[in-house]
Amino acid sequence: MSLTRRQFLLRAGQAGGYGSAFVLMQSLGLLPVPEAVADSPLRLVDGKGTRAVILGGGIAGLVAAYELGKAGWSCTVLEARHRPGGRNWSIRNGTEVEFTDGTRQTCAFEPDHYFNAGPARLPSTHNTMLGYCHELGVALEVEVNSSRSAFMQSDKLNGGVPVAERRVVNDTRGHVSELLAKCIRKGALDEDMTDADRERMIEFLRQYGDLNPDLLFRGTQRSGFKIPPGADLQSPIPNDPLAMRELLDADLWLGTFVEEVPEWQATMFQPIGGMDRIPFAFASRLDSVIRYGAQVKRIRQSDSGVTIIYRESAGADQAADRTIEADYCICAMPLTVVRTLDADFSPQIRSILDTVQYDSAYKIAWEAPRFWEKESNIYGGISYLQQAVDLVWYPSARIFSEKGILIGGYSIEYLPAETSAASSLVRSDETYRSPARNGFTFGSLPNLQAKLDASRRSVELLHPGHGKDLANPIYISWGRIPYNLGSWISFDWNDQRALATLQSPDRRIYFAGDHTSHIVGWQEGAALSAHRVINQLGARIQSAG
Amino acid sequence: MSLTRRQFLLRAGQAGGYGSAFVLMQSLGLLPVPEAVADSPLRLVDGKGTRAVILGGGIAGLVAAYELGKAGWSCTVLEARHRPGGRNWSIRNGTEVEFTDGTRQTCAFEPDHYFNAGPARLPSTHNTMLGYCHELGVALEVEVNSSRSAFMQSDKLNGGVPVAERRVVNDTRGHVSELLAKCIRKGALDEDMTDADRERMIEFLRQYGDLNPDLLFRGTQRSGFKIPPGADLQSPIPNDPLAMRELLDADLWLGTFVEEVPEWQATMFQPIGGMDRIPFAFASRLDSVIRYGAQVKRIRQSDSGVTIIYRESAGADQAADRTIEADYCICAMPLTVVRTLDADFSPQIRSILDTVQYDSAYKIAWEAPRFWEKESNIYGGISYLQQAVDLVWYPSARIFSEKGILIGGYSIEYLPAETSAASSLVRSDETYRSPARNGFTFGSLPNLQAKLDASRRSVELLHPGHGKDLANPIYISWGRIPYNLGSWISFDWNDQRALATLQSPDRRIYFAGDHTSHIVGWQEGAALSAHRVINQLGARIQSAG
Ligand SMILES: Cc1cc2nc3c(=O)[nH]c(=O)nc-3n(C[C@H](O)[C@H](O)[C@H](O)COP(=O)(O)OP(=O)(O)OC[C@H]3O[C@@H](n4cnc5c(N)ncnc54)[C@H](O)[C@@H]3O)c2cc1C
Ligand SMILES: Cc1cc2nc3c(=O)[nH]c(=O)nc-3n(C[C@H](O)[C@H](O)[C@H](O)COP(=O)(O)OP(=O)(O)OC[C@H]3O[C@@H](n4cnc5c(N)ncnc54)[C@H](O)[C@@H]3O)c2cc1C
Repeated sequence: MSLTRRQFLLRAGQAGGYGSAFVLMQSLGLLPVPEAVADSPLRLVDGKGTRAVILGGGIAGLVAAYELGKAGWSCTVLEARHRPGGRNWSIRNGTEVEFTDGTRQTCAFEPDHYFNAGPARLPSTHNTMLGYCHELGVALEVEVNSSRSAFMQSDKLNGGVPVAERRVVNDTRGHVSELLAKCIRKGALDEDMTDADRERMIEFLRQYGDLNPDLLFRGTQRSGFKIPPGADLQSPIPNDPLAMRELLDADLWLGTFVEEVPEWQATMFQPIGGMDRIPFAFASRLDSVIRYGAQVKRIRQSDSGVTIIYRESAGADQAADRTIEADYCICAMPLTVVRTLDADFSPQIRSILDTVQYDSAYKIAWEAPRFWEKESNIYGGISYLQQAVDLVWYPSARIFSEKGILIGGYSIEYLPAETSAASSLVRSDETYRSPARNGFTFGSLPNLQAKLDASRRSVELLHPGHGKDLANPIYISWGRIPYNLGSWISFDWNDQRALATLQSPDRRIYFAGDHTSHIVGWQEGAALSAHRVINQLGARIQSAG
Repeated sequence: MSLTRRQFLLRAGQAGGYGSAFVLMQSLGLLPVPEAVADSPLRLVDGKGTRAVILGGGIAGLVAAYELGKAGWSCTVLEARHRPGGRNWSIRNGTEVEFTDGTRQTCAFEPDHYFNAGPARLPSTHNTMLGYCHELGVALEVEVNSSRSAFMQSDKLNGGVPVAERRVVNDTRGHVSELLAKCIRKGALDEDMTDADRERMIEFLRQYGDLNPDLLFRGTQRSGFKIPPGADLQSPIPNDPLAMRELLDADLWLGTFVEEVPEWQATMFQPIGGMDRIPFAFASRLDSVIRYGAQVKRIRQSDSGVTIIYRESAGADQAADRTIEADYCICAMPLTVVRTLDADFSPQIRSILDTVQYDSAYKIAWEAPRFWEKESNIYGGISYLQQAVDLVWYPSARIFSEKGILIGGYSIEYLPAETSAASSLVRSDETYRSPARNGFTFGSLPNLQAKLDASRRSVELLHPGHGKDLANPIYISWGRIPYNLGSWISFDWNDQRALATLQSPDRRIYFAGDHTSHIVGWQEGAALSAHRVINQLGARIQSAG
């Protein structure tokens, strides 16, 4: 595929959300349009003690073990870490963070604070995950993901002074409405519309853009106020409109589109106390089914079963290789790890492992007094910048309390080859578009300190005077996190044929994880992939028995 | 003012939020542009026991008494009802509702449920109210006011089948973007833009509207899915786009604009357990300063003080007229009530009382199992319809619990003259635009049962099969609620000269309440109006002493 074509698909994928590249490929005739069927619901078939070994105790592995356990299977989960959840990881006081390149950090937050280093949001359409929270008694609260009071900042807009998101959104709409009304008035759509439709369209645009009687956009109260309404005689005065040209220069659209992607839309939820309340709730039901500190090394299968060799490490010095046999295996580890294992996969699987690409998302968390609430009326939501650190997120846990956690950066970062164990994570600048370009700038910063400085600088740009209030940083770079080596399978990589291969068993080995679903980068994809595997296994033992 | 002019201002006021009529009048040269100064902050001056009698224990009266009390004033609040809060009223099991026309209802909700019959939302920009919640220890939670999963319904759209709000929002944007891109391509804006700007504008529109490579809008994942993304091979398929003509016919814009009005924007809050937690928190600090069951009848003032006669009713049969004297009076009752009193106001005040108009908002609440969550992923937010009952609101308290309160209707209702004690509430159909036209239809329904039926019908239209699940209705019609006789001063009525009069003392009488502010229909306006009066009183005793 030509670079242009590929970039185009990539852009469509980013602007429209995951999977729009698929749809586009379909509409371009690059893929056969499959029959329109929804996911099959989970059907549990009595396993009668059939043994399943599940590799990886992330959401996919936990869901598989939990449901198969209900259905009378005999399950073992091998999990390399000493905790459940995989990418679902909440960092608190005392958490040790170690990168593959040897970088070490220890979290020094105050006791009540947590930082969801991986997943932080549950969309209201993710019924499977919400259902598990309900079933397992994980208490949820509303997660506020967008706020019109959050800021947007570009050196090219408003002289570099941040503006509230409501100004970008509504001034853009005002300008677009004015321009279209003007064209219609000029007769540019006379061939396409009846007179009556034109009039209705113009009346609509007047409201849509809050245009003045001459159909000009001269600012709107929707964009907030220079002088807010009060109880004195003074009437409120709206902000002056931002110029369309500056808005185009600033290119802050991604931040305004996010809330139109169904999965980033209100109403979103979060477990009270940290996202890891979910895997811990699963783990408490699974108990001894999970073996922690069990690092899978070798995978072999025969006509009658699978044999897994793993290294069990109780402490730092004690490690021993162990063997486990089972009838079936569910491989729910990231492909970046799977490809490093000694395994007798089919050539089809091997070729996927050889070519797959993962992204490396990073997040930086700080502890700080809640100046964003007190001074800017920002309670939750995300500010966007065109800077090395291009996003500042205000987690909505414990709103109104004294201090909070601030996410000073969350984006896909360029990972230089020399620091990365997973060479496929290295991507050239070319394939990145804004804001991933900022991810390239960020990823090229020489060291941890430079990255923290960039983060502090972005917070300072948005909240002048408060860069200095940031304390106890934690930087997570998922491409360098052992046992993950990436944040998710690259949206750019997605390929319907590969997906079909990953969704079919390699003899007795079934692949699970969000990377085997259309819901990449979401726990819902991981959970539903486990359901798919369970249905496949159920059908298999049913037809066998 | 001609009807057209007046309607135009009214529309501008509605589309842009309160006060945009003011701004428009200013920009049309109808009002002098005042100097741009923000509200003066509250300054407390030692009252040294100066006596203030405060008429009405709504938010304005409570704030006045609370702050003056801090400053060493001797305050008495006369409140006709047997509870504090006025319009801030949460209805629970056992609450008796009685209209001026004799209609009686008793609330039969389950114990944990409440219905905020008046205020239900605190915007994050209302620092005064949020500050009081903090100061008084009123616990807040996020109130979810809009959800793209909520529905929009018109008989003219999609064959009458409700569509998720995300479809209306994003399909509209898609069509607008396509039309403008087309005009630009045709050269309609060649005079206004450079070649480079045109290209940038088109690239922006492609993203803004999620247009296809030919710059046509053919649907978008932002509008949700026919086949949602899953973990099977099936790719997601977005909904088919709604036609622009149908969207124009349906005229559901108001519902989509609401979230662009700063005061209806995320992040919003609500007190946990009911909005009345706020007045009860004030009341617990004020204690015996408030006299309940004290209905003001007569107001007189001299050069040295004010004399108020009120009727004190302890029980139904015991009532006695009492007199209270004070140095100053703060009149914080609705003007619909004030005008019925025997009072020696100035001619300026009297002429305002003679002409003022109030709106009559209504709300209908039901108790029901949370089918909207379980079946439609709606957690909070508001659905809009073009029906007699044109709005269904899903309060976000206790999300995920078994049953909840559903608001089946909240709008401004036409109040026929014969049923209304306050004749100024009678407004003709002419002055109403959509959706107030629905308010006319609703208000013309013959009786309570017909109104409840209309409410049930709207819920049934949005959630087929669930009309029958609605139980224990409560209908509040603010124009018929004693001691309020209206929901708020009419946005249509607002008049800068009248406001100036109401903001100046009538000798020793000061007017407070949201109707004396630019923040009509919000507690923030009531609270800030109290601050203004306190500042005025402080300046007065300071210059006197
Ligand atoms: C930065 C970030 C933000 C995200 N945001 C969200 C969000 O807001 N909402 C949401 O729902 N989702 C979000 N996600 C996605 C979500 O985290 C994943 O979809 C989900 O957690 C994946 O689960 P999984 O079981 O497929 O994989 P993982 O969680 O990666 O589980 C794999 C498991 O395999 C184990 N393992 C690896 N190697 C070995 C080995 N050799 N031997 C034994 N075990 C091994 C790992 O320790 C791990 O426990 C986010 C992810 C990231 C990284
Ligand atoms: C349907 C509805 C929805 C609303 N939604 C919101 C919202 O979401 N958020 C928000 O912040 N605001 C909202 N408001 C507005 C808010 O309720 C008001 O702005 C605020 O409560 C007004 O306070 P007040 O003290 O000015 O008036 P009131 O609350 O009306 O107080 C007047 C007081 O005077 C008393 N009184 C009347 N007559 C007499 C008499 N003769 N003698 C003695 N006492 C008397 C009354 O009993 C009452 O207690 C809403 C209002 C309504 C009606």
